[in-house]
Amino acid sequence: MAHLVGVGHLNPGISTTAMSNAVAALPRLVIERVTPDLDAGRYPVKRVLGETVRVEADIYKDGHDEIAGHVKFRGPGGGQWQRIKLNYQFDPDRWHAQFRVDRLGLWEFVVEAWPDRYGSWVRDLRKRLGASQDVATVLLDGAALLDQAARHRAPDIAARLRAASRRIADTSAKMDERLATAQSEDILAHAHGPLNPEELTRYTRILHVLVEREIALFGAWYELFPRSQSKVPGRHGTFADVEERLPELAALGFDVIYLPPIHPIGMTHRKGRNNARVAEPGDVGSPWAIGSHEGGHTTVHPELGTLSDFDQLVRTASDFGLEIALDYALQCSPDHPWCKEHPEWFFIRADGTIQYAENPPKKYEDIYPLNFWCADREKLWAACLEVMLFWCSHGVKIFRVDNPHTKPFAFWEWLLMQVRARYPDVVFLSESFTRPNRMAGLSKHGFSQSYTYFTWKNAAWEIRDYLTELTTEKTVQFFRPNFFANTPDILHAFLQSGGRPAFRIRLLLAATLSPSYGIYSGFELCENRALAAGSEEYLNSEKYEIRQRKWNQFGNIKHDIARLNRIRRENPALGVLGNLRFLSTEYEQIIAYHKHASGNDLIVIVNLDPQKMHECMVHIPLEDFDLGEDQMFEVEDLLTAIRHTWRGRRNYVRLDPSERVGHILRLIRSR
Amino acid sequence: MAHLVGVGHLNPGISTTAMSNAVAALPRLVIERVTPDLDAGRYPVKRVLGETVRVEADIYKDGHDEIAGHVKFRGPGGGQWQRIKLNYQFDPDRWHAQFRVDRLGLWEFVVEAWPDRYGSWVRDLRKRLGASQDVATVLLDGAALLDQAARHRAPDIAARLRAASRRIADTSAKMDERLATAQSEDILAHAHGPLNPEELTRYTRILHVLVEREIALFGAWYELFPRSQSKVPGRHGTFADVEERLPELAALGFDVIYLPPIHPIGMTHRKGRNNARVAEPGDVGSPWAIGSHEGGHTTVHPELGTLSDFDQLVRTASDFGLEIALDYALQCSPDHPWCKEHPEWFFIRADGTIQYAENPPKKYEDIYPLNFWCADREKLWAACLEVMLFWCSHGVKIFRVDNPHTKPFAFWEWLLMQVRARYPDVVFLSESFTRPNRMAGLSKHGFSQSYTYFTWKNAAWEIRDYLTELTTEKTVQFFRPNFFANTPDILHAFLQSGGRPAFRIRLLLAATLSPSYGIYSGFELCENRALAAGSEEYLNSEKYEIRQRKWNQFGNIKHDIARLNRIRRENPALGVLGNLRFLSTEYEQIIAYHKHASGNDLIVIVNLDPQKMHECMVHIPLEDFDLGEDQMFEVEDLLTAIRHTWRGRRNYVRLDPSERVGHILRLIRSR
Repeated sequence: MAHLVGVGHLNPGISTTAMSNAVAALPRLVIERVTPDLDAGRYPVKRVLGETVRVEADIYKDGHDEIAGHVKFRGPGGGQWQRIKLNYQFDPDRWHAQFRVDRLGLWEFVVEAWPDRYGSWVRDLRKRLGASQDVATVLLDGAALLDQAARHRAPDIAARLRAASRRIADTSAKMDERLATAQSEDILAHAHGPLNPEELTRYTRILHVLVEREIALFGAWYELFPRSQSKVPGRHGTFADVEERLPELAALGFDVIYLPPIHPIGMTHRKGRNNARVAEPGDVGSPWAIGSHEGGHTTVHPELGTLSDFDQLVRTASDFGLEIALDYALQCSPDHPWCKEHPEWFFIRADGTIQYAENPPKKYEDIYPLNFWCADREKLWAACLEVMLFWCSHGVKIFRVDNPHTKPFAFWEWLLMQVRARYPDVVFLSESFTRPNRMAGLSKHGFSQSYTYFTWKNAAWEIRDYLTELTTEKTVQFFRPNFFANTPDILHAFLQSGGRPAFRIRLLLAATLSPSYGIYSGFELCENRALAAGSEEYLNSEKYEIRQRKWNQFGNIKHDIARLNRIRRENPALGVLGNLRFLSTEYEQIIAYHKHASGNDLIVIVNLDPQKMHECMVHIPLEDFDLGEDQMFEVEDLLTAIRHTWRGRRNYVRLDPSERVGHILRLIRSR
Repeated sequence: MAHLVGVGHLNPGISTTAMSNAVAALPRLVIERVTPDLDAGRYPVKRVLGETVRVEADIYKDGHDEIAGHVKFRGPGGGQWQRIKLNYQFDPDRWHAQFRVDRLGLWEFVVEAWPDRYGSWVRDLRKRLGASQDVATVLLDGAALLDQAARHRAPDIAARLRAASRRIADTSAKMDERLATAQSEDILAHAHGPLNPEELTRYTRILHVLVEREIALFGAWYELFPRSQSKVPGRHGTFADVEERLPELAALGFDVIYLPPIHPIGMTHRKGRNNARVAEPGDVGSPWAIGSHEGGHTTVHPELGTLSDFDQLVRTASDFGLEIALDYALQCSPDHPWCKEHPEWFFIRADGTIQYAENPPKKYEDIYPLNFWCADREKLWAACLEVMLFWCSHGVKIFRVDNPHTKPFAFWEWLLMQVRARYPDVVFLSESFTRPNRMAGLSKHGFSQSYTYFTWKNAAWEIRDYLTELTTEKTVQFFRPNFFANTPDILHAFLQSGGRPAFRIRLLLAATLSPSYGIYSGFELCENRALAAGSEEYLNSEKYEIRQRKWNQFGNIKHDIARLNRIRRENPALGVLGNLRFLSTEYEQIIAYHKHASGNDLIVIVNLDPQKMHECMVHIPLEDFDLGEDQMFEVEDLLTAIRHTWRGRRNYVRLDPSERVGHILRLIRSR
């Protein structure tokens, strides 16, 4: 049926003679507020493989008719629609149904509903019979309904409906038999659909669900600079050196190894150590100053190895159950081949030079931004797409995208959809720290997940407020956080001053608060020397020089990492974002939260003070655990495998950060 | 610029050669979550004359450019768009502007925004100058921007921009002068708009605002049965008798006099007194059984008078500042002319008879419902429209619509819009008590205001919950309650058992909680005899017989009514719905709430127990009143004109319902 949207169709100038078509097209019932929905169908909501989509809708009509409806849905690539029946819930006056998504890509769904005329008639028939009313004419009315329905059914069904109609209307037959026919399951089922096409109302919008791999939601990330991975002091690391670290990283339980840009690095205005304006001879430069005479975004830095070395790294990683994620940074050093081949892709100044990056009065002369709206933008956008497709063809299926909020949102929406059309398994992490709407906007426009403000949330109230914001029903539909505990750009003061316990605290929070989390290498060694007081930059930052480390040096927290990653894999409650609820504690520096999945209840308790032991009572909402007021119950600390017996609402914890910073308590249900 | 909506435009199959148009049409920035909005533009939000529309939007783009934007809006009938500038608020990261609506009908608005390229350039220029950087080339860049802008401006503006460009780029001119030209207010203003049409982004939807008369929001209603208004015992009342009551009702401060149907009443299956199945000779029948051989919906019941008597009543009412509201009940008695003239407009049963109303197993044989989806529906809908237009032409501009939820929503949307197109001053009250979505749906589809569940909300928590629901920011945009304290169908147990204090309590609540409220006659006399225990029906209900009353009989609460209606008119805080906030009290049976308007703060305190005196402390949120912790302040009880001096947060009240049931305290600011 043709469907009209919005007040636009309520043209007051419509004449009564021209009303015919307008009335015919008017819906028999009202379908509203269909969820999940992101900005009225403008963007898809997100799921990973195997998750379900619970569709809800307000559906109502005039009068007393029963309403029937279904969700129609289909997977990527079109094809046949599937249908699932909508069920009604009295409170909150809403209809619902759910389906499972089992293929990657863009799914569609829409809600349809209609008056169940025959079902309503049978309902009333039963009431009349219950009140011993005469139903002679009523039966004829029902037979007429079946005849009407028959006109819009397949021939075999139509024949059965007509036969039933005749039996019901047959005054010479026994009343019992006529009533039995009228109420038979078979006839109810076949008469259930819309009486005619005009009786079907369809929601004004088809809504979309983007289905991605599980890694888009759940994973442990590790960032490393390949050039720092050599074991030979002073030698530039290679892809082969990275390969050698893979067994260790796999054993620690990581899923993704993310490499900063692996391309040739520009010489012009190259930055020196600690971001010095002028590089010394031998300084390796920033990997984000992409491009030199050796090549650009599809070239490998010669000192890291060859493209086939890289391919080998990807294969080896895969053998260890690891994925290599690359950095996708759309900017060029002045030496990038594009600067010569396509100066028109950059901002050309009035004096004919290419505009370098700047945030006045600051200048970043080693970087040229691209002009995404330049006259030749078609070719530029295509070239950007080619870069990503190139790496996809080399087995890279995860990209950490550098500063996406400095490129047009329309560009990302186009690019990501183009890539997914060819490689539906590609996952995109947005590296953006900006205003809330812009950050959310990147996820709306297609990014699978996003960096967050997590590093700056260290007090209990900050963590509670921020996580409450991230876990609202609306937000979890499209925004998936990745809680990096540090990055090459962010060494938070909390880590600088808190020492090893601070690193353990932040690791425990990151790994349990967000299904995706990550660390940048050095974190496991509790590296915490800043460039200067008040700065979040590392001293001797790896962004500008090679850093070689002793990975097993004293004080490392690799044991914590391995244990946490195993706990994450074994406990489904940690694989979901929206299942978080904070618990009350009687001391502000101790935070507690509950993560729930079917058969898996975890209570995480963390002492947020890296300096001091704290003890307090934690409040357990017994009703949510099906526990009686004074009932004893057992909890197992998954970090230590020690069991405790707890009882009632208030339970005691004591956390000395020099020994342990928190508990992950699994509730053990009594048999 | 062409604008694409939804994921539909992200066709992954798009080839890079076909990309050109797609890229050209892509928006430069993102505009989202424009409010006020009702179901993504499907329905208009509502205002009354003189109110403002505060538009808000999320607007963001990539990079560092300044954003500029405006709201475009226009009144009913199209015509020239007006523009108001959008302003940015850092927290909550949102843009806003507001406009005033001063004409009845459907207004439109849309949000447009663009990168403010020249403004951004000037901002950066100032930063560079502040850092003493060389701006030689920078000035040339700015001149080039003005040249670009000139291409899309009117000739006179373009000439000024080009002249400015030449001055700025003139290296032989003095630097001070070049800088002054670049930053002049005049040039900033003229360069402010989009650099070219492609740079303008428009929100995907034009949104609508339905503007009605103030009475749609704010008014005191009085329902009376004209046939009961005779002063001569036993004589059928007339329109002239109603006229005689108008001075009294005007003096009580009512705005609207609502009459149940005034049409001829059917004889077939006429109901007797107290809803008896069979009428006795002389029984007058229910006015809702509309139509007899004397006529239908456009005919006046002969015993009430003539059509010109009715016209006279409307005129007299107007002289007293009162409006007559009619009942619009789309149903027919079996004797209605339509049954003979248009049997096809009804439900025809298999035996050829017309289907009477029923809710199986209950039968309402004195009423035939109309079949709004019948084959001849065009003519039926047109006839329904004609009925309403007929009464509009007789000066009726308010309709109380009977049971609208038993007629199609699509019908109401069409009908109300048709009426408003001819009479934009008509106001529609929905008499519907049904599931929440259906009730809200009627208001979405065009009803000005609605009956509510108010009568059934008597406990403090019920009142708080329900009013909180009615006053959410989203709900007040479209749903305007009319708090009837009783109706001919609803005499709540609270009134039956609570006596005179109960009537005073409910009156005080209705008149102060909702801008629109009403009573059905007899309320002022505290009539409270029910048909039977457990029933909400009146004994000897006026629906089925004539009731004559002594309007000044002992115990009436007309003084309360007059006082309350005067207080309502004198205090703007009572004319707004969304300004309600409940205050804490230390005793559950005493409820308190704050109503705020500019310069008008009222604190209403009501003892909800009609039987007993209660006293307790009421909590005043001092910060909202700009009062210090221990500050003294004066409040005046508008019901008694007595002033009290209060101090600090906790203040004492004592309410004996035999004497007074509540306070309306006006805060008197110290000079």
